Amino acid sequence: MIELDAQAKTPLYEQLYAQLAAAIRTGAVPPGQALPGRRSMAARLGVSVSTVDTAYQMLAAEGLAEARPRRGFFVQETGGRLHARPAAAPPATTPTPAPAPPAPRYDLSTGSVDTALFPARSWGRIQREVLYTCPELLQRGEMQGDADLRAQIAAYLGEYRGVVCAPEQIVVGAGIEYLLGCLAHLFSGCTAAVEDPGYHRTRAVLQNSGIPCRLVPIDGSGLSVTALEASGADLCYVTPSHHFPTGVTMPAGRRAQLLGWAAAAPGRYILEDDYDSEFRFDTRPLPSLQGMAGPGGPVVYLTTFSKSLAPGIRIACMVLPPDLLERYRQDFAVYANTVSRFEQQTLCRFMACGQFTRHLARMRLAYKHRMERFAAALRTSLGPAVVLGATHSGLHFLLTCPGAGGEAQMVAAAAAAGVRLRGLREYYMQDPDACPPDTVVAGYAALRPDDIEAVAAALARAWRPPV
Amino acid sequence: MIELDAQAKTPLYEQLYAQLAAAIRTGAVPPGQALPGRRSMAARLGVSVSTVDTAYQMLAAEGLAEARPRRGFFVQETGGRLHARPAAAPPATTPTPAPAPPAPRYDLSTGSVDTALFPARSWGRIQREVLYTCPELLQRGEMQGDADLRAQIAAYLGEYRGVVCAPEQIVVGAGIEYLLGCLAHLFSGCTAAVEDPGYHRTRAVLQNSGIPCRLVPIDGSGLSVTALEASGADLCYVTPSHHFPTGVTMPAGRRAQLLGWAAAAPGRYILEDDYDSEFRFDTRPLPSLQGMAGPGGPVVYLTTFSKSLAPGIRIACMVLPPDLLERYRQDFAVYANTVSRFEQQTLCRFMACGQFTRHLARMRLAYKHRMERFAAALRTSLGPAVVLGATHSGLHFLLTCPGAGGEAQMVAAAAAAGVRLRGLREYYMQDPDACPPDTVVAGYAALRPDDIEAVAAALARAWRPPV
Repeated sequence: MIELDAQAKTPLYEQLYAQLAAAIRTGAVPPGQALPGRRSMAARLGVSVSTVDTAYQMLAAEGLAEARPRRGFFVQETGGRLHARPAAAPPATTPTPAPAPPAPRYDLSTGSVDTALFPARSWGRIQREVLYTCPELLQRGEMQGDADLRAQIAAYLGEYRGVVCAPEQIVVGAGIEYLLGCLAHLFSGCTAAVEDPGYHRTRAVLQNSGIPCRLVPIDGSGLSVTALEASGADLCYVTPSHHFPTGVTMPAGRRAQLLGWAAAAPGRYILEDDYDSEFRFDTRPLPSLQGMAGPGGPVVYLTTFSKSLAPGIRIACMVLPPDLLERYRQDFAVYANTVSRFEQQTLCRFMACGQFTRHLARMRLAYKHRMERFAAALRTSLGPAVVLGATHSGLHFLLTCPGAGGEAQMVAAAAAAGVRLRGLREYYMQDPDACPPDTVVAGYAALRPDDIEAVAAALARAWRPPV
Repeated sequence: MIELDAQAKTPLYEQLYAQLAAAIRTGAVPPGQALPGRRSMAARLGVSVSTVDTAYQMLAAEGLAEARPRRGFFVQETGGRLHARPAAAPPATTPTPAPAPPAPRYDLSTGSVDTALFPARSWGRIQREVLYTCPELLQRGEMQGDADLRAQIAAYLGEYRGVVCAPEQIVVGAGIEYLLGCLAHLFSGCTAAVEDPGYHRTRAVLQNSGIPCRLVPIDGSGLSVTALEASGADLCYVTPSHHFPTGVTMPAGRRAQLLGWAAAAPGRYILEDDYDSEFRFDTRPLPSLQGMAGPGGPVVYLTTFSKSLAPGIRIACMVLPPDLLERYRQDFAVYANTVSRFEQQTLCRFMACGQFTRHLARMRLAYKHRMERFAAALRTSLGPAVVLGATHSGLHFLLTCPGAGGEAQMVAAAAAAGVRLRGLREYYMQDPDACPPDTVVAGYAALRPDDIEAVAAALARAWRPPV
């Protein structure tokens, strides 16, 4: 029973094809059966022979029917299936990941953003414009990323982060992990120093990619250059704008020392991860180390759009000094860029018309207000003993609450009260006992403004039960 | 001169902010100057004090102005610049890539697709729907890719490619190169066999990632298992559906031999790149080697959406056997997925409503007609001596034209006539002299139907000049 609708938007041949395909797949037209002749089918349906022919050809092209010379079209013996459908259940040997814990009521983890701040309307408008007017974006693009996006990024980083580079030095990639993997190839044979406490992720990616890592402690000015020197590393990963997770900003003197370390021996490089530098609320952020070292200096600058746009949109970039750039271009010549060109161009236009910097200014203000309100609510609920550290920048701060039973107890009690957060201790990789006591990491980016007082009250109940 | 438009969609505070920011950046309001008091500014513009206050806060949050206690807002001393804008020209030491050759009139290279076949309307509709209704996609997603997309891919691969797997075994990533890089980590310490002739790319990626490669010749049935055995490799990369670039399909007997090789020693694996298998025009494609080996077998199945959607949209995937999956999950636990979640979900819905398979059927038919018409035009123009090889599948075929001066001369003469194509010889990595003579690789995916006869005529003029 075929029914075609001449008024529908879908062409007649496609309607016919879809209905026949469905009949073949469900077995309503059995394997091996001849399809009606093209002329008689056309007459029966009141359509042209070429409509029927196109539909039959599509069935054949998809392996659902086959054309037999001088005999017409027949349903494939398998009904178009190459193979029995795999069992719905995974094979018994497949490891199943542990089920995710139930979503907490309030999320104070550090990886999320406030989705309400995303400029969906402007982004969607540009995205549509790009999709409908730039079919050339369907083809493969430049290996380092589209040139016009790189020009926008270079101008932005120059103006706002003091990065001194030409668009040619920029490599766009689908996330910092991907870019670190590329760098690991360029630094093959090197040993890297990473901050302790610090990101687990960086260390895991570098080690996965064959770069051994040494843990170097941080002090009140960030990574210790004395300890770096002693580590024997020739590569140094740092987060100078906003150390993760302590929030320390590396002052100018320590930066100069660090550049001095790099200059002291050939082949030494600094990987500057400028993570969260967009969000600084008190003073203007210090310009990047990369800019301090100059465009030919031994610094690779890394930054991501995960916080400034969204973690779900995978765009990050790095700025390579000229010597590394040359090697990168040789070794990665055959690689395709990892970011969809539609998203590259959407971001490019979003930056070109000034919306990106306006969006950042709006977010900075919104997050600043949120931080202030959350800090005030915590001080009110938890009383004068609570200490908030590094509130001035980034999208999290440290929350120290003596007398609440210690960090592990604080995390557990918060979880029981529906609040997800992490203790500081887990970021101390070498010596967890060096971690300050009673301290958790409180991210407020995904905290809804209306929930702020409720979260503070929930934490107060969890940590200071009424006697 | 500030002008605000109360009828505009942009909020008043944002209009005010944007105009002040522009004035500060251009220097129209000089560094250090006090901004008008909030009340007087509000009165002058006929807006509320809070409108002015919000605009000033945004300027401060962006570092363009600063609030001085009890004195009001002042333009930053640097006019909001962290740093002088970098010179527009790249630093002298930056290597500049060789300028791209002028675009040829007709493109017969193999990496492009026909952008006119892309379902921009449906894709755009779904993309919009996803952007406006799923803000949760802004957050970080699952490491292996979104579960519902993996379920769609598993069902599709099961039905159309005979791949036997659970969605849990699938890893989505931004291109085959990225996935090969991940595999290289899992196979660290192994030696890989790659097809010769074959993809340069695979070899480059594996070697970049620390996996030494041995070149193994192919014969009329694809990769020689005898030579594979002799190579000492424990990893074997193959393109059994459609060998690149010769188009050979590996028959069932050779496939069984290859699986026998893998089973003969522990730790041996096959990397099956199912490249171009969507496009087969004569018979149904053979099911995948992965399906032949079963879900626990020693085969990693790789496929890309570059041809079935577009090279500019970076989505590929791999199917891991359970033992490798377990190690992958351990070692890559901290990695974020590399594909934008909006594009993952757009593809997921495009597959779920059946549009993806209909799109494939339409493309298959269009490309089949193009191949047939191009082959006919070449036979007519170049005469009976021309031989077309492996026309039945993939989006290119081999074109042999004896008496045209040899391969290098053919490529050069074609280029002079505005036709870009590549010789076969460059894909023979070890022994270019083993390459059949007078043969070029003719990709027709990006060839516009209206150009077909013109290209054939241009090649005939280039290769058989009238005497």
